[in-house]
Amino acid sequence: MTASSNVASERLAGLRDILAARGLDGWYVGREDMYQGEEVPAAEERLAFISGFTGSAGFGLILGGSAGLFSDGRYTLQMSNQSDGDHWQCFTLPEAGLGSFLAGEDLEGARIGIDPRLVTVNGYARLAKQLTAAGGSLVAEEENPIDALWHGERPAPPVSRPFRMPDRVAGKSMTDKLAELDDRLAQAGCDAVVISRADAVNWLVNIRGTDLLNTPINLLFALYHRENGLILIGDITRLAPVMEGDLANNAAIVPLAQFGKLIDPRAGYDDGAKVMFDPDSLPKALHAPLVNAGIDLAEAPCPVTAMKALKNPTELAGTRRAHVEDGAVMARFMCWLDSGAARGMRETEIAAHLLALRKASPRFMASSFETICGSGPNGAIVHYRALPGADITLTEDSLLLLDSGAHYNDGTTDITRTVAIGTPDAEMIHAFTAVLRGHIAVARARFPEGTTGQQIDVMARAPMWSVGLDYAHGTGHGVGHVMQVHEGPASISKRGSVPLAEGMLLSNEPGFYRAGGWGIRTENLIAVNAPDDDGYFSFETITLCPIDRRLIDAGMLLAEERAWLDAYHARVHAELTPELEGEDEVLAWLDAACAPL
Amino acid sequence: MTASSNVASERLAGLRDILAARGLDGWYVGREDMYQGEEVPAAEERLAFISGFTGSAGFGLILGGSAGLFSDGRYTLQMSNQSDGDHWQCFTLPEAGLGSFLAGEDLEGARIGIDPRLVTVNGYARLAKQLTAAGGSLVAEEENPIDALWHGERPAPPVSRPFRMPDRVAGKSMTDKLAELDDRLAQAGCDAVVISRADAVNWLVNIRGTDLLNTPINLLFALYHRENGLILIGDITRLAPVMEGDLANNAAIVPLAQFGKLIDPRAGYDDGAKVMFDPDSLPKALHAPLVNAGIDLAEAPCPVTAMKALKNPTELAGTRRAHVEDGAVMARFMCWLDSGAARGMRETEIAAHLLALRKASPRFMASSFETICGSGPNGAIVHYRALPGADITLTEDSLLLLDSGAHYNDGTTDITRTVAIGTPDAEMIHAFTAVLRGHIAVARARFPEGTTGQQIDVMARAPMWSVGLDYAHGTGHGVGHVMQVHEGPASISKRGSVPLAEGMLLSNEPGFYRAGGWGIRTENLIAVNAPDDDGYFSFETITLCPIDRRLIDAGMLLAEERAWLDAYHARVHAELTPELEGEDEVLAWLDAACAPL
Repeated sequence: MTASSNVASERLAGLRDILAARGLDGWYVGREDMYQGEEVPAAEERLAFISGFTGSAGFGLILGGSAGLFSDGRYTLQMSNQSDGDHWQCFTLPEAGLGSFLAGEDLEGARIGIDPRLVTVNGYARLAKQLTAAGGSLVAEEENPIDALWHGERPAPPVSRPFRMPDRVAGKSMTDKLAELDDRLAQAGCDAVVISRADAVNWLVNIRGTDLLNTPINLLFALYHRENGLILIGDITRLAPVMEGDLANNAAIVPLAQFGKLIDPRAGYDDGAKVMFDPDSLPKALHAPLVNAGIDLAEAPCPVTAMKALKNPTELAGTRRAHVEDGAVMARFMCWLDSGAARGMRETEIAAHLLALRKASPRFMASSFETICGSGPNGAIVHYRALPGADITLTEDSLLLLDSGAHYNDGTTDITRTVAIGTPDAEMIHAFTAVLRGHIAVARARFPEGTTGQQIDVMARAPMWSVGLDYAHGTGHGVGHVMQVHEGPASISKRGSVPLAEGMLLSNEPGFYRAGGWGIRTENLIAVNAPDDDGYFSFETITLCPIDRRLIDAGMLLAEERAWLDAYHARVHAELTPELEGEDEVLAWLDAACAPL
Repeated sequence: MTASSNVASERLAGLRDILAARGLDGWYVGREDMYQGEEVPAAEERLAFISGFTGSAGFGLILGGSAGLFSDGRYTLQMSNQSDGDHWQCFTLPEAGLGSFLAGEDLEGARIGIDPRLVTVNGYARLAKQLTAAGGSLVAEEENPIDALWHGERPAPPVSRPFRMPDRVAGKSMTDKLAELDDRLAQAGCDAVVISRADAVNWLVNIRGTDLLNTPINLLFALYHRENGLILIGDITRLAPVMEGDLANNAAIVPLAQFGKLIDPRAGYDDGAKVMFDPDSLPKALHAPLVNAGIDLAEAPCPVTAMKALKNPTELAGTRRAHVEDGAVMARFMCWLDSGAARGMRETEIAAHLLALRKASPRFMASSFETICGSGPNGAIVHYRALPGADITLTEDSLLLLDSGAHYNDGTTDITRTVAIGTPDAEMIHAFTAVLRGHIAVARARFPEGTTGQQIDVMARAPMWSVGLDYAHGTGHGVGHVMQVHEGPASISKRGSVPLAEGMLLSNEPGFYRAGGWGIRTENLIAVNAPDDDGYFSFETITLCPIDRRLIDAGMLLAEERAWLDAYHARVHAELTPELEGEDEVLAWLDAACAPL
């Protein structure tokens, strides 16, 4: 048993002692913090603290004599590597879920505790239902026993100061956004809305921050009342400095601890008031005050999330500009790769080189997610993260898959390119070309109003299915404007039931993965154009970076697909050339990389 | 006011008298009979009796001083033509539903009656919810007041005798089907199942009948108990003659009136027994005895419907054979059309000629639905029915759309062809070719396990969307084996959430409609093949009939699409030629119609 698993088992024992003292038979620990975003501050990594597992999704259920650890297929190996097998049973979702663990446990009469700040209203209801079905019950506890254990080594919570995003970058003033929100509430017959998605609050009031590494937002909530205006719910000290201009005139700040007192008859929450909230993001702990106030509640998807998904022309212009800059970075990087300079380098070193190139830009804010740099077989691990020491050196005569992106101060990028290292074999070229056909089918798609991401998803897969290839992830996700790189409500995937609409920014990233061999993914960002004269929609491809011509079997492409690729490369060449002025080596590389097929 | 609307308003007044005498404020009348199939016997056309409206779908809500008539877009015109505007307000679903009518009515405290035999469990619940929301209530009435009014002129109920379908045609004995049903119940943890879809009962016990014009089945229910076996619920006199062989040994007959008494502890329905039923087909009237028995109930889609959707090799072989015969009929018909013999004929006469050709076959049982024969602008009316006197003569220099089919004793056909009459214009050719590209995309589709009809639907639409064309109906429906030509559970449509599986028989029928101009639809039946070595599925096209080459712009087709069409025509030619032996004129027509593009 290693030292670290000793520590973990001590923690587990400590937790069980606290639970026993409180009369609880178990504890549920999720990976979420109160704000339910993809990324959480280090101080909120309770699941990692208690289990050792550091994956970006999952949960644990600790009972008196056993403990279950749950995450999805990308983390199967990592769960068993990082958790102590003597104390934790690991389960891969969705095949094996809570039910599989509970089938081997006697939960009759068991009281399982949970921190109601760290679970949504719907998440709480689902869990309670499962536990009740197994004979137990779920108990919301005010004091988190893991927090009671976790001191000394615990990282500090974020203390960063937010900053305003100027209207000339945001494209729409906070006042205009509030007016639109007001309209939406009026249409829904509601008086107020709790905005429990932090990215939505940041977008609404045109602020950003550095509470997280890869998501430039502040963690805060908001409450908007049609008559009484906007209240930001967060840390006054941190927020005060940005309270100027329209924000000072139109918003108040109230600490989170006072949330319950906000729903007050004197503030318009009297008989007949109707408050909207999103049960998929509102923490259970904030639900109780709403229920206790005895007002009407309306469950609905976050209206601000729907508003911010429709990028305004300024946001799109900033996104386009950021992609010219990011495309130049990628060209420099791929030119460097092709020069052979990376031969013998480790994946983390290659990713570091790319980051260094991006950091040279004065507009660079942060990576938009941890770079995926998978050489050879690691490219086949869809969410591979190269870790120093555990990574490999560049595999020759294979493929390198690089999925990376950045937040610039006017736009966010997310790009994947797969590059031939040495001499690719026929199977690689065949699969790369099939993936490219899927990518082009989406890029060229034309579709009527009401078309959903589920429908577009098929367009990417059909040409791959025709040669017996497929991929076990979605084709595309929504992309935020200098905030979460993954955002709702739309997606291009089997679950994408939201109709695509003008201004939505999405990724287009079909792939193919030969397990143990190599991985392929080609990802550009695309924006939904305004409808044409016939009322049909299409996509504008925003990302500007060559697609490796050495990996394309031109004979597999239809004439129209080949024409798309040549036109795309011509555009990449035209738009990146001015950006690379004076960089002769990169320009020569770009000439070759963008030549017609 | 016409005589017929006089009659209708007398009926309405009569109904209101009965309602008032019973203390009811309104009455709901659907177009369904007890068996909830698409087709109902004439004696069950209560909606037509009370409103005059004879469409195949819809309902009416009669209140004290007003009455609403509801159907979908294909019947908007027909509703207002057939109903008396002084007494009925017409609403087109789904845009204007019950809510639109009720918005103008005061339903506070109103008691609306319904015949619980003529509405499903789920249908009743939906209606009750809507009426309750409007302040009223739904009341199940044992005596149907329309039946009380309707005597004298009422058509007789069906008295036909069923007949057995031999195992050599059905492909699977009743005994084997019951064994499979037994397995499915065991897996679902159920002891018994009420089979409330009449076509499912007919398929399960290998019988057919003539209770309906276009659907060769008997109207009956069944109850299967894992220990006590099968009980057919229907008319003993009519069923007795087929009770021989395995049916006599394995099934009992009980009259419908005795249904309530079947759920008896002595018959295995004691404490702990669990009975499955399908709330989307079980009449509300049969639900009450199940609930009153105090047993466990499991709501689930009809398991027999899922079983019969997967055609066995014999059913598919019969279906293929029927299509050779039907293809020859279509070739004779289209040769006759092209000869100019139909010039100046009316749509009903043309349809009658096709029916006469089909009737020449000794295996012909019935048309599988009322033929759609739409010339010129009538082709643009998706569910057009040519009625003698109200039809038009063949439009020159336009298109004729013919959607027809037949039940032969070993298989069912459903085919649509669009034929050039005179000289088609460029827009017709462009649209026809776009529709053909959609048709071919489905015919050539290759797809992994789990792919749904929703996903295949996109493949048909994508090439049409690319040129700004679309159609407001599904791409395909399930097809029964010598029973309902439309069957579940799978469909190729926006609502098709059921994964396609080996043996499913479906239609592939994209179209395009220029309102006021002409209509195009190209329909073949397709069967889902067994998965190939890579685990991918594909379709076998079953229908054998030339696609009008005069309407194809070969330049719009991709090479692979052209290759599919030429190969299809070569196959049609090879398979129909022997069937047409000695018919020199038709053979010469077939040679030309099947020539490569």
